[in-house]
Amino acid sequence: MSAGAEVGNEDGTGRVELAFTPSGRSVRVPPGVSVFDAASWNGIAIDSTCGGHGTCKKCRIRIVDGSVPVSRLDVRSFTPEQLREGWRLACLAQAAGDLTVEVPPLVTRPKAATVGVGRQVILRPAVQKRYVELDEPSLADQRTDLARLRDGIDDLELTPDLHALRRLPTVLRQSDFKVTAVIVDEALIDVEPGDTTGRRFAIAFDLGTTTVVATLLDLTTGTPVAVQSMLNRQQPFGGDVITRISSTMMDPEALGRLQRLAQETLAELAAAVCADGGVEPAEVYEVALAGNATMTALLLGIDPEPLGVAPFVMATATPEGLRAADLGLGLHPGARATLFPALGAYVGGDIVAGMLATGMDRDKRLRLFIDVGTNCEIVLGDGDRIVSTAAPAGPAFEGGAIRCGMRAAEGAIEVVRLGDDVTLQVIGDVEPRGLCGSGLVDAVAELVKVGLLDASGRFVTNDAAKEIAPTLADRLTLVGEERVFVLHRPAGSVDTADTVYLSQRDVRELQFAKAAIATGWSLLLEELQVGPRDVQQVLLAGSFGSYLSPASAVRIGLVPKLPVLRIVSAGNVAGEGAKMALLSLRERTGARTLLEEVRYVELSDRSDFNDKFVEQLAFPP
Amino acid sequence: MSAGAEVGNEDGTGRVELAFTPSGRSVRVPPGVSVFDAASWNGIAIDSTCGGHGTCKKCRIRIVDGSVPVSRLDVRSFTPEQLREGWRLACLAQAAGDLTVEVPPLVTRPKAATVGVGRQVILRPAVQKRYVELDEPSLADQRTDLARLRDGIDDLELTPDLHALRRLPTVLRQSDFKVTAVIVDEALIDVEPGDTTGRRFAIAFDLGTTTVVATLLDLTTGTPVAVQSMLNRQQPFGGDVITRISSTMMDPEALGRLQRLAQETLAELAAAVCADGGVEPAEVYEVALAGNATMTALLLGIDPEPLGVAPFVMATATPEGLRAADLGLGLHPGARATLFPALGAYVGGDIVAGMLATGMDRDKRLRLFIDVGTNCEIVLGDGDRIVSTAAPAGPAFEGGAIRCGMRAAEGAIEVVRLGDDVTLQVIGDVEPRGLCGSGLVDAVAELVKVGLLDASGRFVTNDAAKEIAPTLADRLTLVGEERVFVLHRPAGSVDTADTVYLSQRDVRELQFAKAAIATGWSLLLEELQVGPRDVQQVLLAGSFGSYLSPASAVRIGLVPKLPVLRIVSAGNVAGEGAKMALLSLRERTGARTLLEEVRYVELSDRSDFNDKFVEQLAFPP
Repeated sequence: MSAGAEVGNEDGTGRVELAFTPSGRSVRVPPGVSVFDAASWNGIAIDSTCGGHGTCKKCRIRIVDGSVPVSRLDVRSFTPEQLREGWRLACLAQAAGDLTVEVPPLVTRPKAATVGVGRQVILRPAVQKRYVELDEPSLADQRTDLARLRDGIDDLELTPDLHALRRLPTVLRQSDFKVTAVIVDEALIDVEPGDTTGRRFAIAFDLGTTTVVATLLDLTTGTPVAVQSMLNRQQPFGGDVITRISSTMMDPEALGRLQRLAQETLAELAAAVCADGGVEPAEVYEVALAGNATMTALLLGIDPEPLGVAPFVMATATPEGLRAADLGLGLHPGARATLFPALGAYVGGDIVAGMLATGMDRDKRLRLFIDVGTNCEIVLGDGDRIVSTAAPAGPAFEGGAIRCGMRAAEGAIEVVRLGDDVTLQVIGDVEPRGLCGSGLVDAVAELVKVGLLDASGRFVTNDAAKEIAPTLADRLTLVGEERVFVLHRPAGSVDTADTVYLSQRDVRELQFAKAAIATGWSLLLEELQVGPRDVQQVLLAGSFGSYLSPASAVRIGLVPKLPVLRIVSAGNVAGEGAKMALLSLRERTGARTLLEEVRYVELSDRSDFNDKFVEQLAFPP
Repeated sequence: MSAGAEVGNEDGTGRVELAFTPSGRSVRVPPGVSVFDAASWNGIAIDSTCGGHGTCKKCRIRIVDGSVPVSRLDVRSFTPEQLREGWRLACLAQAAGDLTVEVPPLVTRPKAATVGVGRQVILRPAVQKRYVELDEPSLADQRTDLARLRDGIDDLELTPDLHALRRLPTVLRQSDFKVTAVIVDEALIDVEPGDTTGRRFAIAFDLGTTTVVATLLDLTTGTPVAVQSMLNRQQPFGGDVITRISSTMMDPEALGRLQRLAQETLAELAAAVCADGGVEPAEVYEVALAGNATMTALLLGIDPEPLGVAPFVMATATPEGLRAADLGLGLHPGARATLFPALGAYVGGDIVAGMLATGMDRDKRLRLFIDVGTNCEIVLGDGDRIVSTAAPAGPAFEGGAIRCGMRAAEGAIEVVRLGDDVTLQVIGDVEPRGLCGSGLVDAVAELVKVGLLDASGRFVTNDAAKEIAPTLADRLTLVGEERVFVLHRPAGSVDTADTVYLSQRDVRELQFAKAAIATGWSLLLEELQVGPRDVQQVLLAGSFGSYLSPASAVRIGLVPKLPVLRIVSAGNVAGEGAKMALLSLRERTGARTLLEEVRYVELSDRSDFNDKFVEQLAFPP
């Protein structure tokens, strides 16, 4: 099979594509993800009230193209004819291959929504709208406009914004004292003429170092209306948090510029999701944002230098009392902004959001959460005890410091399989241009599997290679003085510039990265006095971690040696956590509670760190 | 005696001038005011801790020119030689004539300050500064910067402004973790390097329809640092609240313009007092503002129309959560603004401030508070019960609708005495140009006293005049077809344009104005079931009321018929109340409590109002 061909749907490691109608949107997800989650993570609303447990039977979809087996509950939910037509429950429909899915329009106005990793959230947003019909004032009833409104909404202690106070007399009298109060927590942020209770929106942001995602939510139904993502405009200042912190240390103007770039990124996304969803920016009354500590500091214009040098100290773990305007967003003038609290300089709000979205605080199983990236955040919990740490994995997973490394963009090899030949899956199905993080992990894992890399991470000799894998051995060659394994060489090309290969040094980079991560979780396992095999579930999170092949992650020792089914791709959990905070005050409180429940373990001052690290460099047997 | 000559110091009705050294400032006050109050109201600090009761004996001053009798307590406080040198206690030194007063520099750092009408206020401002020396962070102590600061100030629950959060990491590290926290209530609004606890300022504003006064206060000592006043820049939109409200009803742009003009007035005054006091605007952390409901609404950009038409409804009685920046002020970026709450559309925050400054909520005597102006606010209380109302007095007191009326500016006749001849006191000691409110009241009162006006308010016939007051009778003449009394005619002039006179219609205008006021307080007396003679003190307040001659006010029936000594000029009580709110959280709470204690009596729907009004038109016998 040649490079660029489709692979992997059969063995459950490649990406599958789901096309949704009538929205026309399509998404690529790891196989095994439920159609419900795939839709939800991508802003396509499917009815549900039970939280994906197959009990409400509302998440009806029709498989128009592709195949999904009939589940036990499908048989109870649909007639045989419907089943033949492709009707399934979305929460139980696992996408094993490419699918085209028809999503019926929403029929229920749910009291709950399903977000995160199967989390069902009772809808109780901070944003409320109350329609009231008030008595008109008279000489016998000279209550102030505010007192009149408060008396009409007497279960809340409303505090008006100045903007709302300015609008109050005019709007009351324009609309015969029939108005809708717009409330966030107990702040009265506006009064609108007549009954506008059906229009209530918020935006959840996942402010990543690389990618920023915005989801526009309808707070009345709990469903996503539109999703957009783009690269963080801070990219020119460096690919990771450390280079961005460094730039502020070298240039006094950099902090202001980075702040503006972050604000512009959010503003562009906000405008895009509003346009996409047919929502006026002034109808967006709240935003929630999950980001790591550096992204959060830069967005707020706080000097990040203390985050970048020991002892790694944040200005605050809990930025509060903010407005969307403080983040440079032109939404409703009184729109509030809720930022996820952080556990530490390197376990930020994005991870707290992820813990919320994955239920790390509630699930009674022993679970390991790993957000793989330049800075890798690791959480281990069993519902009673939760510990977390951060491991400096370096840029390898983002293609940095890798000879043919690149971002997960068009032309990047994302899946590698070695048999008699090399089989590649390339983003965009084009000629391979380089190797992204998941391709790197795959390549190394496969080379270890076939034996071309030994346990210490060294390429075997050419002679040994010819014995071990005669059809692949000629790909082991030299580029300059360095030994490499050629993954792709264009037909007829002799120029190494067109070649995509994995070098000995690349393997070392990956070993350092995975050893840092493995040291992190092994120390956390020690903290809870449990062993690697006790772990019941590993959640791979983040825009990179979600796309890792679980089998390859096990093979190189990035995760504990466990059955592949226990290793789950968790998707964009930071964004999901942000959505939960917008949909439910209870979940928002849960994020604050996590700060007290989670014990942060600092690795950089552990005397045993280096020993453990060296132990983890080798690949597991 | 000719026009323009000094009069009145002897009979206690004219103004006296006090010149203070070394400040070089001089002020004109009604006679009988204590030197302490005269200084305090004008921003000159004199030591005191007892509140003007003669007990602390700290308010030592020296009378350099003029005469002040030695009081019983002066004898105990000074040696005979000191007494001969002119040393007196300022709180007991009544200014009966012009004085030059030497004020020693402040020696104490008081825990209390004297403001208002003899109110002693324990210093406990909302603005606090705390100097802390914090431990530097380490890997063993990774508390966030905010947590570290909070732990150092553990008696408060600090909530940081975003501005303070931005400054925190930088300032902590610039100053070796020795910083001063700037706190308003429990908001952390800034951190400053090193110990800046000695610099802590606030500005009290009295936002009048006509005049706006700003006092810069040193919150550490409770003393005024600088005072400035100017005309409200909204003047071109009309002299009173009704014309300004009308302009917003006719022109949709007017509200925005009026808001900007009010903001500009405050900003100019703020800049002036800061420059005058040698204080950086960024050292001003709070402002307090007392204004009537219309001025407050316009300043905040709230449509005032509902205040101007029945049933006279405010947007809110208690504007809260404001910042100085919301008022257009460029002080510290986190500076807060506290606005006085209002009792009703026509008993606004200025009156609540005045009630605080005069102790209307605490004094056990039956007292009547009257703020004389176009809208006249009246409060009656005995410490247990307090009632208030507003009377529409019209523009007469501000010189409006009076033929030769003018504001209290240079050339205005402010005092009138009739004997064998007419004796006038003119502002600026220049040729009279017109008649201001106090001159109008004086003129009518004197004409009633000599009998040239009868009890019904009609000028007597020329024949009767010649019998009653032969030396004045020829001043009764005609201008056009209207009978007038000529107060001043320039020597040799025959042109009535240069003549200052009082017309029959002017007398009617004043009768209507004083009848409205008298109807107001007589209905309040009925509400408390007491009679006019039960009133133990009448406080005349406001920039106009404070300058009224008590004897003339009694004569025309503007106040109950009481011994003149019971009628007290209270000064700029709105501004004093604003100062109290800045100096003491307890007093600020007191203002809020007043809202519940005071019962507002609406006059405009009283069926007996017209009857009472007609009864009050005549002058008392």
